[in-house]
Amino acid sequence: MTKKWTAEKLTLGVCYYPEHWSEELWEDDFRRMKEAGFTYVRMGEFAWTIFEPEEGVYSFALFDRAIEKAHKLGLKTVLGTPTATPPAWLTHKYPDVLNVSQSGIAYQHGARRHYNYNSENYRRLSSAIVTEMAKHYSYNPGVVGWQIDNELNCEIDVFYSEADHFAFRKWAKEKYQTLDQLNEAWGTVFWNQTYTSWDQVYLTRTTVPNSPNPHHMLDEKRFISDSAISYAKMQADIIRKYTSNQWVTTNGMFKHLDNHKLTNEVLDFYAYDSYPNFGRVLEDKSDKPLRDRKWSWNLSVVRSISPNFAIFEQQSGPGGWVTRLEQPSPNPGQLRLWTYQSIAHGADLVMYFRWRTATKGTEIYWHGINDYHNLPNRRIKEVEQVSKEIQLIGEKIAGATYQAEIAIVTNYDNEWDAEFDKWSGPFASLSIEAWFKALQYNHVPVDAYNLNRTSNLEELKKYKVMVYPHAAIVSEQTANLLERYVKQGGKLILGCRTGYKDETGQVYMKAFPGYLAALTGISVEDFTREAPFETTPIVIYKDKTEIKTRGFYETLKVESKDTEVIGRFSDCYFEGKPGLVKHQFGEGACYYFGGVFTIELAENLLEEIQINNYNNKFDLPESVELSIRKKEGKAFVFLLNYSHEMQELEVKEEMTNILTGEKIHQKIQLKGYDVLVLE
Amino acid sequence: MTKKWTAEKLTLGVCYYPEHWSEELWEDDFRRMKEAGFTYVRMGEFAWTIFEPEEGVYSFALFDRAIEKAHKLGLKTVLGTPTATPPAWLTHKYPDVLNVSQSGIAYQHGARRHYNYNSENYRRLSSAIVTEMAKHYSYNPGVVGWQIDNELNCEIDVFYSEADHFAFRKWAKEKYQTLDQLNEAWGTVFWNQTYTSWDQVYLTRTTVPNSPNPHHMLDEKRFISDSAISYAKMQADIIRKYTSNQWVTTNGMFKHLDNHKLTNEVLDFYAYDSYPNFGRVLEDKSDKPLRDRKWSWNLSVVRSISPNFAIFEQQSGPGGWVTRLEQPSPNPGQLRLWTYQSIAHGADLVMYFRWRTATKGTEIYWHGINDYHNLPNRRIKEVEQVSKEIQLIGEKIAGATYQAEIAIVTNYDNEWDAEFDKWSGPFASLSIEAWFKALQYNHVPVDAYNLNRTSNLEELKKYKVMVYPHAAIVSEQTANLLERYVKQGGKLILGCRTGYKDETGQVYMKAFPGYLAALTGISVEDFTREAPFETTPIVIYKDKTEIKTRGFYETLKVESKDTEVIGRFSDCYFEGKPGLVKHQFGEGACYYFGGVFTIELAENLLEEIQINNYNNKFDLPESVELSIRKKEGKAFVFLLNYSHEMQELEVKEEMTNILTGEKIHQKIQLKGYDVLVLE
Amino acid sequence: MTKKWTAEKLTLGVCYYPEHWSEELWEDDFRRMKEAGFTYVRMGEFAWTIFEPEEGVYSFALFDRAIEKAHKLGLKTVLGTPTATPPAWLTHKYPDVLNVSQSGIAYQHGARRHYNYNSENYRRLSSAIVTEMAKHYSYNPGVVGWQIDNELNCEIDVFYSEADHFAFRKWAKEKYQTLDQLNEAWGTVFWNQTYTSWDQVYLTRTTVPNSPNPHHMLDEKRFISDSAISYAKMQADIIRKYTSNQWVTTNGMFKHLDNHKLTNEVLDFYAYDSYPNFGRVLEDKSDKPLRDRKWSWNLSVVRSISPNFAIFEQQSGPGGWVTRLEQPSPNPGQLRLWTYQSIAHGADLVMYFRWRTATKGTEIYWHGINDYHNLPNRRIKEVEQVSKEIQLIGEKIAGATYQAEIAIVTNYDNEWDAEFDKWSGPFASLSIEAWFKALQYNHVPVDAYNLNRTSNLEELKKYKVMVYPHAAIVSEQTANLLERYVKQGGKLILGCRTGYKDETGQVYMKAFPGYLAALTGISVEDFTREAPFETTPIVIYKDKTEIKTRGFYETLKVESKDTEVIGRFSDCYFEGKPGLVKHQFGEGACYYFGGVFTIELAENLLEEIQINNYNNKFDLPESVELSIRKKEGKAFVFLLNYSHEMQELEVKEEMTNILTGEKIHQKIQLKGYDVLVLE
Repeated sequence: MTKKWTAEKLTLGVCYYPEHWSEELWEDDFRRMKEAGFTYVRMGEFAWTIFEPEEGVYSFALFDRAIEKAHKLGLKTVLGTPTATPPAWLTHKYPDVLNVSQSGIAYQHGARRHYNYNSENYRRLSSAIVTEMAKHYSYNPGVVGWQIDNELNCEIDVFYSEADHFAFRKWAKEKYQTLDQLNEAWGTVFWNQTYTSWDQVYLTRTTVPNSPNPHHMLDEKRFISDSAISYAKMQADIIRKYTSNQWVTTNGMFKHLDNHKLTNEVLDFYAYDSYPNFGRVLEDKSDKPLRDRKWSWNLSVVRSISPNFAIFEQQSGPGGWVTRLEQPSPNPGQLRLWTYQSIAHGADLVMYFRWRTATKGTEIYWHGINDYHNLPNRRIKEVEQVSKEIQLIGEKIAGATYQAEIAIVTNYDNEWDAEFDKWSGPFASLSIEAWFKALQYNHVPVDAYNLNRTSNLEELKKYKVMVYPHAAIVSEQTANLLERYVKQGGKLILGCRTGYKDETGQVYMKAFPGYLAALTGISVEDFTREAPFETTPIVIYKDKTEIKTRGFYETLKVESKDTEVIGRFSDCYFEGKPGLVKHQFGEGACYYFGGVFTIELAENLLEEIQINNYNNKFDLPESVELSIRKKEGKAFVFLLNYSHEMQELEVKEEMTNILTGEKIHQKIQLKGYDVLVLE
Repeated sequence: MTKKWTAEKLTLGVCYYPEHWSEELWEDDFRRMKEAGFTYVRMGEFAWTIFEPEEGVYSFALFDRAIEKAHKLGLKTVLGTPTATPPAWLTHKYPDVLNVSQSGIAYQHGARRHYNYNSENYRRLSSAIVTEMAKHYSYNPGVVGWQIDNELNCEIDVFYSEADHFAFRKWAKEKYQTLDQLNEAWGTVFWNQTYTSWDQVYLTRTTVPNSPNPHHMLDEKRFISDSAISYAKMQADIIRKYTSNQWVTTNGMFKHLDNHKLTNEVLDFYAYDSYPNFGRVLEDKSDKPLRDRKWSWNLSVVRSISPNFAIFEQQSGPGGWVTRLEQPSPNPGQLRLWTYQSIAHGADLVMYFRWRTATKGTEIYWHGINDYHNLPNRRIKEVEQVSKEIQLIGEKIAGATYQAEIAIVTNYDNEWDAEFDKWSGPFASLSIEAWFKALQYNHVPVDAYNLNRTSNLEELKKYKVMVYPHAAIVSEQTANLLERYVKQGGKLILGCRTGYKDETGQVYMKAFPGYLAALTGISVEDFTREAPFETTPIVIYKDKTEIKTRGFYETLKVESKDTEVIGRFSDCYFEGKPGLVKHQFGEGACYYFGGVFTIELAENLLEEIQINNYNNKFDLPESVELSIRKKEGKAFVFLLNYSHEMQELEVKEEMTNILTGEKIHQKIQLKGYDVLVLE
Repeated sequence: MTKKWTAEKLTLGVCYYPEHWSEELWEDDFRRMKEAGFTYVRMGEFAWTIFEPEEGVYSFALFDRAIEKAHKLGLKTVLGTPTATPPAWLTHKYPDVLNVSQSGIAYQHGARRHYNYNSENYRRLSSAIVTEMAKHYSYNPGVVGWQIDNELNCEIDVFYSEADHFAFRKWAKEKYQTLDQLNEAWGTVFWNQTYTSWDQVYLTRTTVPNSPNPHHMLDEKRFISDSAISYAKMQADIIRKYTSNQWVTTNGMFKHLDNHKLTNEVLDFYAYDSYPNFGRVLEDKSDKPLRDRKWSWNLSVVRSISPNFAIFEQQSGPGGWVTRLEQPSPNPGQLRLWTYQSIAHGADLVMYFRWRTATKGTEIYWHGINDYHNLPNRRIKEVEQVSKEIQLIGEKIAGATYQAEIAIVTNYDNEWDAEFDKWSGPFASLSIEAWFKALQYNHVPVDAYNLNRTSNLEELKKYKVMVYPHAAIVSEQTANLLERYVKQGGKLILGCRTGYKDETGQVYMKAFPGYLAALTGISVEDFTREAPFETTPIVIYKDKTEIKTRGFYETLKVESKDTEVIGRFSDCYFEGKPGLVKHQFGEGACYYFGGVFTIELAENLLEEIQINNYNNKFDLPESVELSIRKKEGKAFVFLLNYSHEMQELEVKEEMTNILTGEKIHQKIQLKGYDVLVLE
């Protein structure tokens, strides 16, 4: 991260496509945006052919006029580089720029993101258009910042063009230096996969039962991430060469991309596109489904990248492509709720997607604030209400920091390894979901914390408790850091299948949990996956509470005098065996559960670890989320009601709802989807 | 349609493949056909290699002998052109004739319909074989008509060979003249799809998340239909050049093909292949499933193409390919029932598929009237019974016209647009099914009416009521025609998502329902798709009846003093909002329902619109279909029992069952699958 | 089979990959193997690159050291030829060796079995490596036998490389001599598939609705089987050229491979890889699921290939690839149970897969006896118990023959034809499963008998009863053999859809059951598949027992005075029609059921045919399997408890459990998963 973006107040904005509409509409559109309280307008990110109608011929007139009109009316433009959608002339002339499926089918012109990051032609042509745009707009007073490309790795997150295979070979050569080291890292001696010449090395290819080498597969994802970052860096470097006051970011968050590294190495801050309606339309069959509230986790992960971030696309209506993703309308109140959800989690700038619903193309059902007809509607009114409220609270909140004493740990290596691993891989996301639900429904604010090679004790010490379930890959260095964290007083919670793999994804010749033996005070004696024809075991927690389990079972062998067994399995052939332990270690404690977490177990452990749930200040129903942002000693409490029904809650000490100025004390009613911001 | 085919009496026939059987069997087969009461025999449609064993070498001896034998025994031959199955020598020598998948995989020799309509080689070779056949058989007294190819667009209805891409480019150039107009029509400014050179234009190709441009996709289907028609026309023109008394038709009805245009421009009449067993084997989970009775709707659509038509393949046994489509046997009585189903809906010629079950190839389980063993069976007996009955009633019925006061409107543009549209597209078929069931189960005969660019008020005026649910595409011209229809006294019934798209599939910048604003007397205020996590709203019809809903909800704003709200939503956040209105307009009325029709709602509206259900003449159970054909003032009433159980029904005025001569009055019992034809 | 392998005693062994582990571990590993009671160790089958690091350069040092170390410690090595996994240098240099999907996508390096059997390059290179290995190891005293390749046709059992198409054309030319005969056999006159030149002939290719010619498809499977056998024979011939005392085998059993022919023509005996855990993890929804006990059927089929056989891979822990096949751990006792399951069915050598769980590659979850960590675990203890027991009983049991009076008949032509036939094909496996369950749960030992062109009356006469359900293909020769079998006193049980196809898969122009008319004493009058919308018919057995049915119904016409109707259909439109008959024929009887067998019907017929269920000797619960092996007049009775629960059983005459020496008489308790071997 080369420089820091700070917002002086909360601001709103909107995405606009001047090229889609008759020029006569622009002025009226921009004036209405301003009236609606917007400050930012994002433009340009899919307009390559307008900027460069033929190779090497550039034309900025259309956007010059649009930016100028917006600027005159007081709107600041965020300009997108248009590389997410190469022109027809480009892909037709240079088919090597196309992304290709693993089995060799090229993705053609007709949708978006059909290019690859490693084609020399695409790098050259991208470089040229970004250079021309940066030169042209660097001193334009209407342009305040840049969005690189659009949603890197969205639509598709694997790449198998010739250029990618070639670049991967180079990447592998740089990483491993010798074929012996590559063979060692990928365990190629298994099934005779040994490479004896660099030109035998490819990205994974079609294999007989669709089962390529898993270590190779893990490196492939690292390579994809590096490719995307390097491509974004190429653009950022060009923009920075020509600009001075304009910031550079991009909008995420998609798979096979280390967004933390991307942000640290390339961006001024991170931006996110937030569509909680996905969470409402997916038929979530899980226990106590989160639905749109799942986005609070997504936003927590975004916050782990940029503590204060921007939303570049905030859902503003029902969504759906012509071909898929069909969604109902947000109910009255939900657009406002979702905007505050973003703000509560750290967003200081929120741009709605989009000003007016497209009348053409794949996204005609991805509704904007305005309908096709441009007449007044309830969505505009709701956004205008938010705007007015933001005017009141924007300066107080901006820059304030989200407060959490507990963190759920994420890690790219484990995420990528788990994705490919059907045996142990699915458990991490199940346990994270269970923990997040337990924390949400018990009103315990939580951070995501990304553990990586630059992580240090200072960062970890911020948290009283860290939950890192089912991290298969744990290096000696990571084990050491976690030991130091617990030793100084931290509480660490681990689940089954922890610590058995090294960074190549190969398995240690050690008893589980590998380098975490000392910290956990146990070893794994025996284990099994859940068996379809047998009864599901339970855990007897602290000799009395029966807790249902799922997925996997490890029986634990106590290896330390400081290990206390706090849960034992029952209703199974390993009846009575230890399944859950607490190991006192230095000033802190490590909890190890030989299974997959459930909400119920997480809630029991919440009591055990004594984390602040603000019970002394509030009495809240499950459907209300509690978030706290703090600035200069002042805490701002967000209470968000995700239910469509009226909820009763209690504020135990008098506070002020700064959205209205109203004093609040004791029992009050919060309407369906309503929001309080208390000081 | 160059000339009209009229039948003097109902006739039966059968499909026969002399090339499959030892020549010694032919004479016996033809004699038994004649004895079974058949007049027509269809031959030749898969025999290209027999007619042309190598390129340019023709051989008609086998079929000459077969046709002559048939003719001597009094059978008339319908001759198929054999282009549905190109010879191995042809596809091997000219692989460009093959159809190809969107991702580039050629469909090879080994099944059928693996060619494309636009290959120059295929056009040349098809033209040659059809020319030689037409020359050879034009004056053959045994040959009375021609079937072009076989089941155009069956098996596969998309085409992506090089020849198709090339022809599509040409087609687009002719349609749009300039790239600007093409770009405008396809909305290519969205996602930077703008074409800057004609050689960038292809049929849709593989795109990243399988989501090509929807307007492009709509044109692709128009192109496929035009390609098939042009290919059929090429054959028909050749046949007509050489023949005088022989008619020309083909057998349908498959997707991506404007059968109305095909028939008008190319054929003498339309023929259909009727397999109601599909309806019995598909596990129809819908409310009150139609099963084999669904074919009554298919036959109604066929009738909208040709008021009197032929069945070229009437199911005559259990069906199934070796690899799929496996079906049980028709129960005793069902072959007869299905034959009368065809006749009741307008068929004047019915040919059974096929004489004897194939002993080889993919269709060994597609049973004919005879089993493999050629011994007597119950299917032959049942067909012979039909034959005898047809002798009695054939002259009376032939040429008689099906009677309906209500029409369900179909339209190719909307059908093709809906097929690709997951957001609004699925509703039309749901509502058509609901209306058809309501009409069937209440004994109201119904037509399909195809609305197209040549539709006129005269045609529409034939119907007291028209139901046109969820027509997304409504042009100003169509809106105007519908206005004139209602103004003169018609009743028009519309559903949600009507009128918002133009003929390119782009959305109007207008309040819904677009150009139908004046006619409907409402605008759509707000809308939502059904939300998976919420309770399903109901409609309170006329302040008292609670009707369940599904799929989509539009709240309506009354825009005319003549608009009466007759239904309001309940159990939802738009509680009490108008959802169903009646708008008096001139002498007629337009009904608009802001939702997807159900059988229950359709039945309530049937009362409202007061359509003739023949209650005064009959009292019929649900399982009995009522159809009426009329000729020279005489009405013939078909009563068809689709249940396997005996049904009681009442004939209120004395009538005669012309199948038996029996007088019928008051309550009678109709056996399972039995049929009455009353005069 | 060129020579016979006989075991003097039961022996155990284990699969080991010295190349995966540091050489320092070898000695300890081999010593522990010996201590665990193992005699055999299998090595080398995936190590091509180690043997031949570059083309033509051979290196045997690593395996020489391993074999020598093993030999010194008393272990005998079974050496695998490494052709299941070609080296990277090989597939990179000779891409024509790769297998290819039907649509043309090559399977690349990265997994295993991605080669084809017909590539000339692959044959040449395979021949070279096998020659070098055979030369090198032929007189090595540590090497006792060879495994050719590994699991032929596993992972993938279809092959469409250029080399395969080419070889198939040659194969077809040899088989049919003329195109006329090929066209006749494939019924190409149907749908105009006639070939007019040999270069038009390919293996089946992509067809429009994925429905290639079924007769062509049947030959394709015969060709695949012949290709695999010819490839194995090439290797066996080389090995035999250089060796004298070493036997040759391979490990099966996979689809599209005539393992009987393979064994007769190529191997000394047959080996099998037994993984009963598959049966426990698949969620078997069938009636009274067999789960791991299903492997008793698999082992019976193996026994039909080699009466005494070897298990080269006996499951020794939980299984799973990284990407699929995930399995729970075997419960305590199950490894032992499964070992005795193999032995009870005829295995004289059992090698466990594998010594230690792999720490790298696709099979890191395919656990060996040892865990990654190499520390003691319960699986080692369990295997050691088995070892000790085997010491006690090994000499008695080895070479003993499984005893069965009833056989279920298998036949490759019918299996391959059924696989492709959706209409009648699925019934055979349903009925075999029903019969096998009925026999298992009633403690009737059963053989599989493979009927083929070399079958003779002597072989059939071994069985009192043969069950051959739904054999669509029955030649006149087979019908004749079955007639002679029944005439001399055999009982034959047939199901619906029997005898209607000839060896090309074409249908006879005969009444069903074709050439079996005389033997069955009936003809099929009418038939239907089960109809989804109708009630399921029942059979009234012997005028009193109502038996549920499924799938298919044939009504039977009695054609012989010796035919007795013993079952009639009810609850259907063919009410009262004969569905099950017994036809006295010579000294025996033929039973024909016009339907698909269920357990219930099979159990009723078991009473009828009076087969020995050892009721006089034992009273056993369903969960216990009874198997008997006999040698030199002595019978050894295996009682295997597949339940995890204690079972009560009765031994009516005193016997000795030779595992413990304990006398057993009257009621005893058998623990969950426990095993008795009684003499």
